[in-house]
Amino acid sequence: MANWSRARLPRPEAPRMRPRVVPTELTRIDFTEIVPEPVAFLGQAAYIQLEFFESLAKAVATAPDLAAKEGLSAAAGVALRKHHDLIAELRRLGAEPAEVMAPFAPATDRFRQATSGADWYELLLGIHITSGMLDDYFGQLSEGLPAELGARVRGILQERGASEVIERELSEAIATQPGLDDRLALWGRSLVGDTLLIARSALRAAEANGALGTDVEPVFTELIAAHTRRMDALGLTA
Amino acid sequence: MANWSRARLPRPEAPRMRPRVVPTELTRIDFTEIVPEPVAFLGQAAYIQLEFFESLAKAVATAPDLAAKEGLSAAAGVALRKHHDLIAELRRLGAEPAEVMAPFAPATDRFRQATSGADWYELLLGIHITSGMLDDYFGQLSEGLPAELGARVRGILQERGASEVIERELSEAIATQPGLDDRLALWGRSLVGDTLLIARSALRAAEANGALGTDVEPVFTELIAAHTRRMDALGLTA
Repeated sequence: MANWSRARLPRPEAPRMRPRVVPTELTRIDFTEIVPEPVAFLGQAAYIQLEFFESLAKAVATAPDLAAKEGLSAAAGVALRKHHDLIAELRRLGAEPAEVMAPFAPATDRFRQATSGADWYELLLGIHITSGMLDDYFGQLSEGLPAELGARVRGILQERGASEVIERELSEAIATQPGLDDRLALWGRSLVGDTLLIARSALRAAEANGALGTDVEPVFTELIAAHTRRMDALGLTA
Repeated sequence: MANWSRARLPRPEAPRMRPRVVPTELTRIDFTEIVPEPVAFLGQAAYIQLEFFESLAKAVATAPDLAAKEGLSAAAGVALRKHHDLIAELRRLGAEPAEVMAPFAPATDRFRQATSGADWYELLLGIHITSGMLDDYFGQLSEGLPAELGARVRGILQERGASEVIERELSEAIATQPGLDDRLALWGRSLVGDTLLIARSALRAAEANGALGTDVEPVFTELIAAHTRRMDALGLTA
């Protein structure tokens, strides 16, 4: 049971909208118009990577054979590296990582619980779907950060870690275990809602300003389209 | 529940004694006289690091605050790097890591279970004591490997990962929680036997040759002396 007493709990700062001079009809959101507060952005992104690491470590510990253990442990290393690289960016900004991450911990912990599934295969699909969507999403959001920081963040997030080993393990299992495809298709659909809630939380305050209401829709449409491609690649109905 | 069906199970090869021309009275073992079979040595050492990684990942997931999570996740990264670097040495020798590690998995898994303790503090002390002893031990054993390989292995194993953060967390807890020192002192003593059994297993076949019976004693004396220093540093009676 987590006790956050040592870390103080500052409120995460809200992403701000860059003033738009000319209102336009957008069918596709321009992410450079959303200006995330860098410290809060990095704190949430770093904590999410720590959660992916914990899920992958659980997948390593419960893997059915050593080949899977090997591939997943490498993927866990990638998530951990992303976490530490984002932490390093926080320190560069003079922020104390534990303090910055603390406000994001409860919702992210719940998210991990909700997406970890009932067995090893559901755990793997949970990692694949949620990390696929959120790495894309935070990469896109980083376009609104100061240019150099944003480029470094995209460099950190774009490293592919878990997808290859998870696609291999799940495809093999789906091919040999009757009924697994239907169960995983259902599970994959149920993951989307939880993931979009985390994605929205990064924009919540900007929405409260009434600024993002309609513009944000295409982002989520795009995230869901990428999700569908990910499910298709596994032969699962999204 | 692990199912090792995908990895075949070769017998680990036994360490061999280099022929000794002049028998001498040794009070201190010369590790260069023990010639570990490189592939089996690397397989056992790599699998043990994977177990340390899993224990550290569990310690991250159950850490009571974010500062501890941070330090332990960095230590988990170090154990994982040691694991992958040893795996890379196996591949360099043309060996398939999963196959080489498989024979060591059951005993090492039991070892991890036996040393993971009843709560977070016992888990931390278990990692500290067992990784301290076994990193030292495998570093010493590596003196009998071919010179360049041995030097690389010592370079891999000598990176200090968990000890600093664990000493800090345990010292703080011992200072503030009455009775924790007695409980951890008892737990620390009980860890030694299990750890020496793993250490001995790396020498078992050489001993079966009757060659190591007396010479090996000083190694274990040395390991226990280092263990006592580690316990002393925490203010615990070894």
